[in-house]
Amino acid sequence: MERVRLVHGNGGRFSHELTERFILKYFKSNLLAPLHDGAQFPVSSGRMAFSTDSYVVQPLFFPGGNIGKLAVCGTVNDLAMNGAVPQYLSCGLILEEGLPFDELDQILRTMAEMADLANVQIVTGDTKVVKKGEVDKIYINTAGVGMIPEHVDIGPHRVQPNMDIILSGAIGDHSIAVMGQRFGLELSESVKTDCAPLNHMVHAVLQEAGPSVALLRDPTRGGLGTVLKEIADQSGVGIKVDESALPIHDEVRSVCDILGYDPLYLANEGKAVFLVEPVVTERVLDILHTFEEGKEAVLIGKTLDKNIGKVGLQTSIGGVRLVDLLGEDQVPRIC
Amino acid sequence: MERVRLVHGNGGRFSHELTERFILKYFKSNLLAPLHDGAQFPVSSGRMAFSTDSYVVQPLFFPGGNIGKLAVCGTVNDLAMNGAVPQYLSCGLILEEGLPFDELDQILRTMAEMADLANVQIVTGDTKVVKKGEVDKIYINTAGVGMIPEHVDIGPHRVQPNMDIILSGAIGDHSIAVMGQRFGLELSESVKTDCAPLNHMVHAVLQEAGPSVALLRDPTRGGLGTVLKEIADQSGVGIKVDESALPIHDEVRSVCDILGYDPLYLANEGKAVFLVEPVVTERVLDILHTFEEGKEAVLIGKTLDKNIGKVGLQTSIGGVRLVDLLGEDQVPRIC
Repeated sequence: MERVRLVHGNGGRFSHELTERFILKYFKSNLLAPLHDGAQFPVSSGRMAFSTDSYVVQPLFFPGGNIGKLAVCGTVNDLAMNGAVPQYLSCGLILEEGLPFDELDQILRTMAEMADLANVQIVTGDTKVVKKGEVDKIYINTAGVGMIPEHVDIGPHRVQPNMDIILSGAIGDHSIAVMGQRFGLELSESVKTDCAPLNHMVHAVLQEAGPSVALLRDPTRGGLGTVLKEIADQSGVGIKVDESALPIHDEVRSVCDILGYDPLYLANEGKAVFLVEPVVTERVLDILHTFEEGKEAVLIGKTLDKNIGKVGLQTSIGGVRLVDLLGEDQVPRIC
Repeated sequence: MERVRLVHGNGGRFSHELTERFILKYFKSNLLAPLHDGAQFPVSSGRMAFSTDSYVVQPLFFPGGNIGKLAVCGTVNDLAMNGAVPQYLSCGLILEEGLPFDELDQILRTMAEMADLANVQIVTGDTKVVKKGEVDKIYINTAGVGMIPEHVDIGPHRVQPNMDIILSGAIGDHSIAVMGQRFGLELSESVKTDCAPLNHMVHAVLQEAGPSVALLRDPTRGGLGTVLKEIADQSGVGIKVDESALPIHDEVRSVCDILGYDPLYLANEGKAVFLVEPVVTERVLDILHTFEEGKEAVLIGKTLDKNIGKVGLQTSIGGVRLVDLLGEDQVPRIC
């Protein structure tokens, strides 16, 4: 079995070989070919979004995806959450000496598939190789850019009291799928990562309801609970959420009950929170329901002009639980 | 002594604390504050360059710099080599549990200082924490964007035979400084990394001689030899270089002699190769000499219309040595 060697990262002949054999095989942008140290492309005037994330998920492969899927979808989604149309991505690989070529191949193939699906091009990159034990198999960084359409203005400054909060689907799937794989739990095939590019769905919503969409956030690390608390803090509103409205798949709920996880703080990789003016709520839900990734979208709560900076979860037994940022929980390498 | 803990990467309260204490302390862009998952900024129409690099240098601190200095200057220089004016950078940190806060502090402070020097803003980022032993202390990815001025067109397609090849200064300093630190060699204080942002110097050259500058490359990993061979391959020219013209500092040459390194393949982090029409050579050298980073700039060779794809080094004893890409040498984690 062929494996990554240290010389594949020395910048010379073997680096070229690795680039040609894997990178250029899968990332077929015209912009990638001519120069190794950067891409050049035309832009038109307007506003651009720019985002980055590093991916260190363990294990690399899990039900419904792998680290490459996360690396493309994660940055695509961060751009979409800025209201941007994702266009160009970079790919920085840090490889451990000894990584089997076939694992690298699978991961990069998945990245290319996801880039196609999201309609983005991977145009520039960098590959480092470190000694065995100095990284765990492979870590990937992606950064991305995309233009923000003129009628779109997304940000905490746009949030007002009495806006509706829509969640695009069930929470916790990604974390439970990864944890299940990591700990060798025997879960049904229905438990898999929700990882998906959300940009087309978000774009459809913004096309129809752009000026009435105030904020978009994807509840990844830290989960829905943390994102809601951040919104309350940053936008200076209170937030009320109805616990019984939160979609959670049965098996995810069962695993959470058994292992003591709180679904509110589990990472998601294919969900979005929309803060919208109530006048467009029904229309936004209708649009979301036409997408596979949004078919379980629901209204989960409202922003308030009181209890500023606080998130209250109305529980099914009638009480209100205050939701804070994720605290001491250690769920390393979930994405 | 305070150290990084796993919870500093969980996306919740402790992630916020780390961000506020270190990231927001040093990276003071107005664009960084409002959103954690991306920056938004205006762009005007034209051509943009986009580049990325991950930094895994070992040790983290070495004479004249640290990993943070490399991380900012490296991406700034990649953008400058595309002829772009670097504007916005991202910063992806992967931290090892147990990294002392004071080391993180020093590294981020240096990044902020270098960003100031290069006149770029670090506007978006991401921080992951992995368990002890799953990364070696800290790896940093930066990506960056910048606009390419209208009169500038840099690329392998622009290179013609009979162009002059200018090198902005002495080679090998960075590699020998890092290797010296890694192996505990006792070298004089004059041996230190050449790491520096080159964008202002490159901009000055392009302002004066833009249309006559065909290609820019920084000889980092793989060294000058690899870069020249890449240029010959990509541009379809031959290259002739005069060995006696190559500036190499005495102590670097001595260490190379003793340890058997070939300076031609050592990494540099503050040098650039300029391929220019001969009519501007004197003017470009004059401009380079006005900059500290370019004061040792010299004409080292020419492109040819024969020996396509080959690089011939005319040695001081009268022979010609063919220069290939760096081969089997293993110099891991030099940047």
